[in-house]
Amino acid sequence: MTTAAEVLDIARARGVMIATAESCTGGLIAGRLTDTPGSSDAFERGFVTYSNLAKIEMLGIRPETLEAHGAVSEPIAAEMAAGALARSKAGIAVSVTGVAGPGGTEHKPEGRVCFGIASAFGIHTETVDFGALGRAQVRAATVDHALELLAERLRA
Amino acid sequence: MTTAAEVLDIARARGVMIATAESCTGGLIAGRLTDTPGSSDAFERGFVTYSNLAKIEMLGIRPETLEAHGAVSEPIAAEMAAGALARSKAGIAVSVTGVAGPGGTEHKPEGRVCFGIASAFGIHTETVDFGALGRAQVRAATVDHALELLAERLRA
Repeated sequence: MTTAAEVLDIARARGVMIATAESCTGGLIAGRLTDTPGSSDAFERGFVTYSNLAKIEMLGIRPETLEAHGAVSEPIAAEMAAGALARSKAGIAVSVTGVAGPGGTEHKPEGRVCFGIASAFGIHTETVDFGALGRAQVRAATVDHALELLAERLRA
Repeated sequence: MTTAAEVLDIARARGVMIATAESCTGGLIAGRLTDTPGSSDAFERGFVTYSNLAKIEMLGIRPETLEAHGAVSEPIAAEMAAGALARSKAGIAVSVTGVAGPGGTEHKPEGRVCFGIASAFGIHTETVDFGALGRAQVRAATVDHALELLAERLRA
């Protein structure tokens, strides 16, 4: 598992800062990244876009994309990451949008989280079904996976 | 101690949504408020303005205020809370800016945190010196105090 401190170290070595765009984790990725003293030289800002309106206003998510795919979808994760990258001084942005639960639907089950990573190398998205682990566990697993994705992309 | 679930309940009863503007806590207040299922009807969005530029761009903090008082000051806490209120659909916004540590200066010691609350009733600011408890403890105490301030103002 990659720690937040390791992610910050790789970002520093690469000379890029990090931005976050969070829905279901509600700020916990930014919170984890700033647990470490001195994180201000590698973490730039975070967007906690809990409501759809916040996604539209803060990150430039298109209402058409929300309508067509719903908030928990890779197209929205992609637009969130791209929006955070464009609206910050960061060189890499990670986004998450998911169903932390409890509850879910047939098509969007509890524990499903869509991730996005945007950088100068483009946008990558993926979906992970963590399962119905419970809200706190899904959120913690989402933070861990977001850190892995940041580390992977920064090392690439 | 007031829990996040209680704060959300009071906000719901008052018919207002909550926004957060965080510096030293890096998203942990928003993270705590969204620990509870169903928080989306009372938590609207969060701004994690870790860098000064993020404070200026995301919340409309005036560079003159930063220059005159520094980022950890009640005038900046006031502008952060007012900026979050104006830039969201929330009816109340809480802000924090502080020295989580380790480290600090004679005039801005480790553990000092400035808080702001903005609502239709105006802006309230205060400063708490938590002391050199260590970074994690200062951040946790800051989240707790922010929840107390939200509850107090929502009950007033």
